[in-house]
Amino acid sequence: MLDHIPTADLTIDDMYTAHERIKPYIRRTPVMTSEVLNEQTGAQLFFKCENFQEAGAFKVRGACNAVFGLSDDKAKKGVCTHSSGNHALSLSYAAGRRGIPCHVVMPRTAPQAKKDAVRRFGGTITECEPSTSSREATFAKVQARTGGAFVHPYNDPRVIAGQATCSAELLEQTGGVDAVIAPIGGGGMVSGTCLTVSALAPQTAIYAAEPEQADDAYRSFRAGHIIADDAPKTIADGLLVPLKENTWHFVSRNVTDIFTASEQEIIDAMKLTWKYLRVVMEPSSAVPLATILKNPKVFSGKRIGVIITGGNVDLDKLPWLEG
Amino acid sequence: MLDHIPTADLTIDDMYTAHERIKPYIRRTPVMTSEVLNEQTGAQLFFKCENFQEAGAFKVRGACNAVFGLSDDKAKKGVCTHSSGNHALSLSYAAGRRGIPCHVVMPRTAPQAKKDAVRRFGGTITECEPSTSSREATFAKVQARTGGAFVHPYNDPRVIAGQATCSAELLEQTGGVDAVIAPIGGGGMVSGTCLTVSALAPQTAIYAAEPEQADDAYRSFRAGHIIADDAPKTIADGLLVPLKENTWHFVSRNVTDIFTASEQEIIDAMKLTWKYLRVVMEPSSAVPLATILKNPKVFSGKRIGVIITGGNVDLDKLPWLEG
Repeated sequence: MLDHIPTADLTIDDMYTAHERIKPYIRRTPVMTSEVLNEQTGAQLFFKCENFQEAGAFKVRGACNAVFGLSDDKAKKGVCTHSSGNHALSLSYAAGRRGIPCHVVMPRTAPQAKKDAVRRFGGTITECEPSTSSREATFAKVQARTGGAFVHPYNDPRVIAGQATCSAELLEQTGGVDAVIAPIGGGGMVSGTCLTVSALAPQTAIYAAEPEQADDAYRSFRAGHIIADDAPKTIADGLLVPLKENTWHFVSRNVTDIFTASEQEIIDAMKLTWKYLRVVMEPSSAVPLATILKNPKVFSGKRIGVIITGGNVDLDKLPWLEG
Repeated sequence: MLDHIPTADLTIDDMYTAHERIKPYIRRTPVMTSEVLNEQTGAQLFFKCENFQEAGAFKVRGACNAVFGLSDDKAKKGVCTHSSGNHALSLSYAAGRRGIPCHVVMPRTAPQAKKDAVRRFGGTITECEPSTSSREATFAKVQARTGGAFVHPYNDPRVIAGQATCSAELLEQTGGVDAVIAPIGGGGMVSGTCLTVSALAPQTAIYAAEPEQADDAYRSFRAGHIIADDAPKTIADGLLVPLKENTWHFVSRNVTDIFTASEQEIIDAMKLTWKYLRVVMEPSSAVPLATILKNPKVFSGKRIGVIITGGNVDLDKLPWLEG
């Protein structure tokens, strides 16, 4: 069972297995282009729109792979996780599709829209205080009570194999690119990208993009070991979490480079994408374009796959309209 | 030449000819779905996302058909039109692709974003006062000076044949629907829909959706003759213009019914679409969903094609955030 494959043993076959398993529950999202954005960057950009998943984020891939990979016996007690964001939605969505319970521990300060979505998909929320100690204590209780299988948001080979299916589609849909770039938080999407791209298109560069104000992956990559920030603060709320050993495995081996962008650069890139690509996406998803715009020597003249990771954003609080 | 076909003689072959002609210059836009919106309407909705055209609107189809249908001799002097919106952008885009001049007369009060886009595509703007008399006088001068071929925003069989290609793609992409619904202003998109759907799927209903505050098509349809409003005022700025004889031809013969929605219903439907479909689209494009939500007896249980007509919206002025 995939449950038991350690990350170091993951192969491209695990991605293929995941893809077959999750296809009935995910969308093959479109790849979009914009001549204006191509002109502004000097590159040919292919945006893989994972914000168009029903749950609004790529995380539904990893969540579905974990949920549908469980034996019937294990599945009976459902799944559980802690998350303030898209993983909570996505795991609820996946569990709902399988018809099993899903319990998520969320900080009481999590956006109402995300709590509403968890409930819409049939998940049960237990609130905790917005601190690591409260989250861990609350989660331990919930898991003990429900006996549900824990699906970590990213530090889990089943999740990584699921996220890996995104780049496989991107490579097929574009016929190949010179580089792929994705935002990096905990590193689940980037690790999946590494798994697929290093096997199917080894000549393709893999870049990660990170907010300057939450640049733990950037500093880890340069230091050669995981550095976790204490309490990063950035508008890119999907990218607050640190790398863990399963994602560090891929990031340290397969990533070509990591670039960072300032808060203002992220907001500008977000607005540019909304305007010219006409898609609703989260601040986190704008970090790659922000770094492409400021590193023309790296990207100009190249064919670049850009992963738009999610589109769950509060439409009443758009950053370019805030104070 | 298609130039000379009167509207009454248009056939589905003119749509096919248009489609072959414009394919290199337009996108086959994706059809998107949302389980949440399906639940809320009780219908199966298939959104044809014309906001994803490079110029941000379906009007690029009609504009390209007119521009690329011109003889080389006629094309030399370029094209001209008057428009405050998406037709100006789209004609500039089409003319730019053919490498011929495009002159547009726009009211000086037109949104800066739309003026900027015309110039980005290589169009030349002559400003007029925001009145019919000024527009007509200014346009007569521009046309006399440039000798460009006039391409009307909708009252033109070449334009209607171009818009007709949208529904042909929609029918292919969905494998057929019970009804198609599109917003109606001057009636170009609805007329094109009639041309295609009445020929290729005659059992499919054709609905038009209009703002209550600019309901001239609704009243014309019921009266049996064209009624033009004096100065309608609605947030759906793409739907201010009245029907003309070429579009009335189709509306009066092929449309099943016309529904209207209030300003607040349009804004609510717009926000719903942004939230759950995660696409950036104009207020005009939200009118169909607004009418579907308020007429469940008509739409519930059916497969409905919904045309999202455009996505050129001012991101600094979102209607649900306005005082």
